[in-house]
Amino acid sequence: MTIENLKYVLRIAVIGGSNPKNDILTLAEEAGRLIAKNRCLLVTGGLGGVMEAASKGAKKEGGITLGILPQNNTDSANEYVDFPVATGLGWIRNALVVMNSDAVVAIDGEYGTLTEISNALLYNKPVFGVKTWGVSKGNDSPQGLTVCLSVEEAVQSAIKAAKNG
Amino acid sequence: MTIENLKYVLRIAVIGGSNPKNDILTLAEEAGRLIAKNRCLLVTGGLGGVMEAASKGAKKEGGITLGILPQNNTDSANEYVDFPVATGLGWIRNALVVMNSDAVVAIDGEYGTLTEISNALLYNKPVFGVKTWGVSKGNDSPQGLTVCLSVEEAVQSAIKAAKNG
Amino acid sequence: MTIENLKYVLRIAVIGGSNPKNDILTLAEEAGRLIAKNRCLLVTGGLGGVMEAASKGAKKEGGITLGILPQNNTDSANEYVDFPVATGLGWIRNALVVMNSDAVVAIDGEYGTLTEISNALLYNKPVFGVKTWGVSKGNDSPQGLTVCLSVEEAVQSAIKAAKNG
Amino acid sequence: MTIENLKYVLRIAVIGGSNPKNDILTLAEEAGRLIAKNRCLLVTGGLGGVMEAASKGAKKEGGITLGILPQNNTDSANEYVDFPVATGLGWIRNALVVMNSDAVVAIDGEYGTLTEISNALLYNKPVFGVKTWGVSKGNDSPQGLTVCLSVEEAVQSAIKAAKNG
Repeated sequence: MTIENLKYVLRIAVIGGSNPKNDILTLAEEAGRLIAKNRCLLVTGGLGGVMEAASKGAKKEGGITLGILPQNNTDSANEYVDFPVATGLGWIRNALVVMNSDAVVAIDGEYGTLTEISNALLYNKPVFGVKTWGVSKGNDSPQGLTVCLSVEEAVQSAIKAAKNG
Repeated sequence: MTIENLKYVLRIAVIGGSNPKNDILTLAEEAGRLIAKNRCLLVTGGLGGVMEAASKGAKKEGGITLGILPQNNTDSANEYVDFPVATGLGWIRNALVVMNSDAVVAIDGEYGTLTEISNALLYNKPVFGVKTWGVSKGNDSPQGLTVCLSVEEAVQSAIKAAKNG
Repeated sequence: MTIENLKYVLRIAVIGGSNPKNDILTLAEEAGRLIAKNRCLLVTGGLGGVMEAASKGAKKEGGITLGILPQNNTDSANEYVDFPVATGLGWIRNALVVMNSDAVVAIDGEYGTLTEISNALLYNKPVFGVKTWGVSKGNDSPQGLTVCLSVEEAVQSAIKAAKNG
Repeated sequence: MTIENLKYVLRIAVIGGSNPKNDILTLAEEAGRLIAKNRCLLVTGGLGGVMEAASKGAKKEGGITLGILPQNNTDSANEYVDFPVATGLGWIRNALVVMNSDAVVAIDGEYGTLTEISNALLYNKPVFGVKTWGVSKGNDSPQGLTVCLSVEEAVQSAIKAAKNG
């Protein structure tokens, strides 16, 4: 992929924990691979765990990866991040991860991932979850994230939603 | 309440939407009133709806109210905020609302409230919810917020948790 | 000073370094004392050095002090801060210190203070400096801070400018 | 330039006002052109004026441009930005522009540029200025920015400093 017209490429975030179990890392790598294969830009939080596995998958497929970091420098970006972005915002950077995506794939994750899912909903970004948090507020509720049974389903749904966004 | 030793006073946030139905406003005002009656500082997002009703309740009881605003000035604070804090962070200020609380009471709310609940969990602040979002992640999940059946229960639980925090 | 109508009180920031020489600390304490004596709220960055000395001076005079902290909790606030505000923004919180003031008194300081002076100018807050940074941009330049020869002059000018603001 | 190993490329920021005179735009475009010619990544605030002219210059030379925006979406990025980054931070994003650079070239500018120069000094990024703000603090002062007589000098100095950084 060359750099030309990159800003017209769809941007898909993969969010999830920094210290998940191995089966989750496998799912994250597959998500990154599929996003790159579909010629979308991968956005993550730039650190380890799901973020690193997704970025690794994207790079294996020749994709481009953006990593939005909590630190005020880019030293902590994982090795698969092409464009590290320092923020100095700590956990607050979670909002920027989804703000810079057209759609979001959530895989597993802890409270940090839950803040990203919530911010995705707040910033009107479609979110597709695999083995992750559910949110609900009763019958007259605003809509939450879409539960998916596989990474393939989540990535395909995210790309489709991003195209229609 | 005088200003002395204010920093040793427990700080309880009330979070919720800016445009709720009337019955929710009644709950929010009652929450603010109970927080002030228990000599705790009320923290809100400083704007309208649940934020304003809770602040109104606290002031009726002679309490002190802090309002952490999205704007870069304090003009939009509701009239019941004693200490408005400008942030210029937009919705990102939601993280600061819970960061500045010892415990959180969530009443109703939309996506913005969900980001505050999520951030409360991330920053390890106990959250007690009335007619609000539920979050869950399955059996081996990190714990979510505590569902309460009344504002009285939520406020009392929040104060108790704040004391033990 | 009671808590009533606090939001109508003028807010004056004192900015400066966290590790200055003793003569600077004396100036900062005097600035805080004068601000409180004039029944204005003192705003600082909440940490040590000039921030602590100014807050100490304000409390000696029975004033009220707000401290806007870089950390995501309030543990690091100095003992003279009545209202600590956690931000989790690191140095970026410097913008919030001046955002929450009607006028600014700068005393000495390093690069952090320079960012606060610059942000004060950006957010249209009058800045009065004692033994601190100068900024200039040539003849057709936007105006910089006002150089003062004493803390008394700086505080009085700041209060006057805040009243007219 | 391909995307490979982009994170090892030096990143040079060009900062300046959004509404300068024409001669300043010419300087900014030349700065962007020289940065790209030297195979460095251009970082700007992503909007108009100096930011747009520098990005235009870089793209004419086949360079890659990053634009760090105040808004919470990327719609306002100028047409020469390859990688727009939304922040939702308003003017506070100025800190992120320099945080994501190895060295900074300042051309003209108003108060916003002054906050970027100040933050560059705070985050220990070498700054080289052409027709822009000067800052100073007396004899025992921490060092300010380096005044340059031409854009060529500023860009070459910035690249050299970035290599040694």
